[in-house]
Amino acid sequence: MGGDAVNIGMIEASARRLDGHARVTPLLSSPFVDEIAGRRVLVKAEALQHTGSFKYRGAWSAISALSDNALKTGVIAYSSGNHAQGIALAAKQHGIPAVIVMPADAPEVKIANTRTLGAEVVLYDRPGGEDRRVVGGRIARERGLTLVNPYDDSQVIAGQGSVGLEIAEQAADEGVSEGDVLVCCGGGGLSSGVALALEARAPGLRVRPVEPEMQDDVRQSLVAGRIVAHGKPEVGLCDAILTPAPGQITFPILHRLCGPGLAVSDAEVKTAMRIAFERLKLVLEPGGAVAFAAALFRPDQVGGDAVIAIATGGNVDMKAFARILAEG
Amino acid sequence: MGGDAVNIGMIEASARRLDGHARVTPLLSSPFVDEIAGRRVLVKAEALQHTGSFKYRGAWSAISALSDNALKTGVIAYSSGNHAQGIALAAKQHGIPAVIVMPADAPEVKIANTRTLGAEVVLYDRPGGEDRRVVGGRIARERGLTLVNPYDDSQVIAGQGSVGLEIAEQAADEGVSEGDVLVCCGGGGLSSGVALALEARAPGLRVRPVEPEMQDDVRQSLVAGRIVAHGKPEVGLCDAILTPAPGQITFPILHRLCGPGLAVSDAEVKTAMRIAFERLKLVLEPGGAVAFAAALFRPDQVGGDAVIAIATGGNVDMKAFARILAEG
Repeated sequence: MGGDAVNIGMIEASARRLDGHARVTPLLSSPFVDEIAGRRVLVKAEALQHTGSFKYRGAWSAISALSDNALKTGVIAYSSGNHAQGIALAAKQHGIPAVIVMPADAPEVKIANTRTLGAEVVLYDRPGGEDRRVVGGRIARERGLTLVNPYDDSQVIAGQGSVGLEIAEQAADEGVSEGDVLVCCGGGGLSSGVALALEARAPGLRVRPVEPEMQDDVRQSLVAGRIVAHGKPEVGLCDAILTPAPGQITFPILHRLCGPGLAVSDAEVKTAMRIAFERLKLVLEPGGAVAFAAALFRPDQVGGDAVIAIATGGNVDMKAFARILAEG
Repeated sequence: MGGDAVNIGMIEASARRLDGHARVTPLLSSPFVDEIAGRRVLVKAEALQHTGSFKYRGAWSAISALSDNALKTGVIAYSSGNHAQGIALAAKQHGIPAVIVMPADAPEVKIANTRTLGAEVVLYDRPGGEDRRVVGGRIARERGLTLVNPYDDSQVIAGQGSVGLEIAEQAADEGVSEGDVLVCCGGGGLSSGVALALEARAPGLRVRPVEPEMQDDVRQSLVAGRIVAHGKPEVGLCDAILTPAPGQITFPILHRLCGPGLAVSDAEVKTAMRIAFERLKLVLEPGGAVAFAAALFRPDQVGGDAVIAIATGGNVDMKAFARILAEG
């Protein structure tokens, strides 16, 4: 897949391909949430997207942009889970083969879901030092598969940008034209796509990437003005977004368009998950709750009468979620 | 509030008053759910409605239909919780006083939420034999408040009917014009309102009320052709829908328009809650999950290539939900 410069035209073309396939997710709110945050909070509920995360959008966008020849041989992806499920379902719906390279210690629900969605899962040993990029690249070459990068791919970014087009429209319906849009950020695919869409369609709304405190490579990169890797192992509560550094394609977009990054603690993420459960009736995975946590607990660091938080995913093990609820 | 015959004109007038206030809730689906059910299942996610249940619609509809004089003195409602929250928020948004009569043993979250939404809560002692209707009636007379019945009220039924208008439109978008619409049923306000809306706007869709097995008064009433009370105490897992009998206004509508009632066990309800969590990322309370349970576990009793289940509410205590997840 390519690195053509992403622009609003590509995002709108992608949104047209997604029409009738991706779900237009609602913008949720609650007076109880507003009271905690001290301002109006709107939550873009991408956990309700097909496969339980926004990743389905980028996956569909990338696959639907493939040449006929590439469609015939199929796709491969490496992913901590949500991108994998998105690729698996979008490939199945296109009737093409998909191979997914996943760490052997990924949450069980994500591995099982990916297999049930019809993809072939190849597990690699993360603690043993194997690199998913190397494993994925080798299989791609051997079988002639097209590798779909989880974030550093123009068509993936364009697909995630469709979230931004929806936010522009839904925020206008709610009378919100200025404010911060908080985005859970791993490699920056969603943040960069949404930032480009908002630049064109709602210039008063500004993306603020949000990460876990100890893995805030995007925040640090934005401060430094160049890509900085956090250097930590890619494990932790917020498994879906623990990429080591922003992407080569995504970072220049983030640097040009985003406000300063934010970071939240694991305890704040768990509290945000409980509040989403109680007040929005929405299941969020830890990595999908960091932006909502920042909306709730960083009132002095975000601007505007209203903030929008993208709740990016809800793929969390049942027992893990039960434990987090019971702690509250 | 009155007992004027409810018709499609009243439902459409109510929907216009609700426009911009009630949330248009999404119709969710999952290939995993379809596989369990053995057919296509669409879930109308009313747990995402303001206050966490469809009851907000009926409450807003009834309050917005009051005379200026009645608005000045305010409203009173008796409710196991969801109607109470709907009335409290709608009254607050109209700037009028609301008194809510609730059983002292109602889930804590519902009592606390109702108070936070600005209503005055009067508790009565259910096990001690007090009748909420008597308590509510006395206070209404003393203070000149308008009593809003939770289901046996034309404007409440008309408000709930707006769910049916949305289903008619959303089902058509999904290419579904024939099939059963499974509705969690207490006193029958939602079932009757949706049935009237579908009769006019999607005559191929037929309401099937769903209840807990041991409290299936609506199912029995439909069989008998007259109102039959279940005679059990109004306590149990599915607290939101444990009314003793269908209403005087709702039953004739149910009898004319609905297919046979269905009933599900508590174990099936809990499994349905876990599946909604895992596959739809949606928090459902037990009483809000009975229709989804019937969609999953009564394949031989429902008809059509697709069924629609209304997931009516998500107001469940965090620790109770955690226990149900942990049992799975």
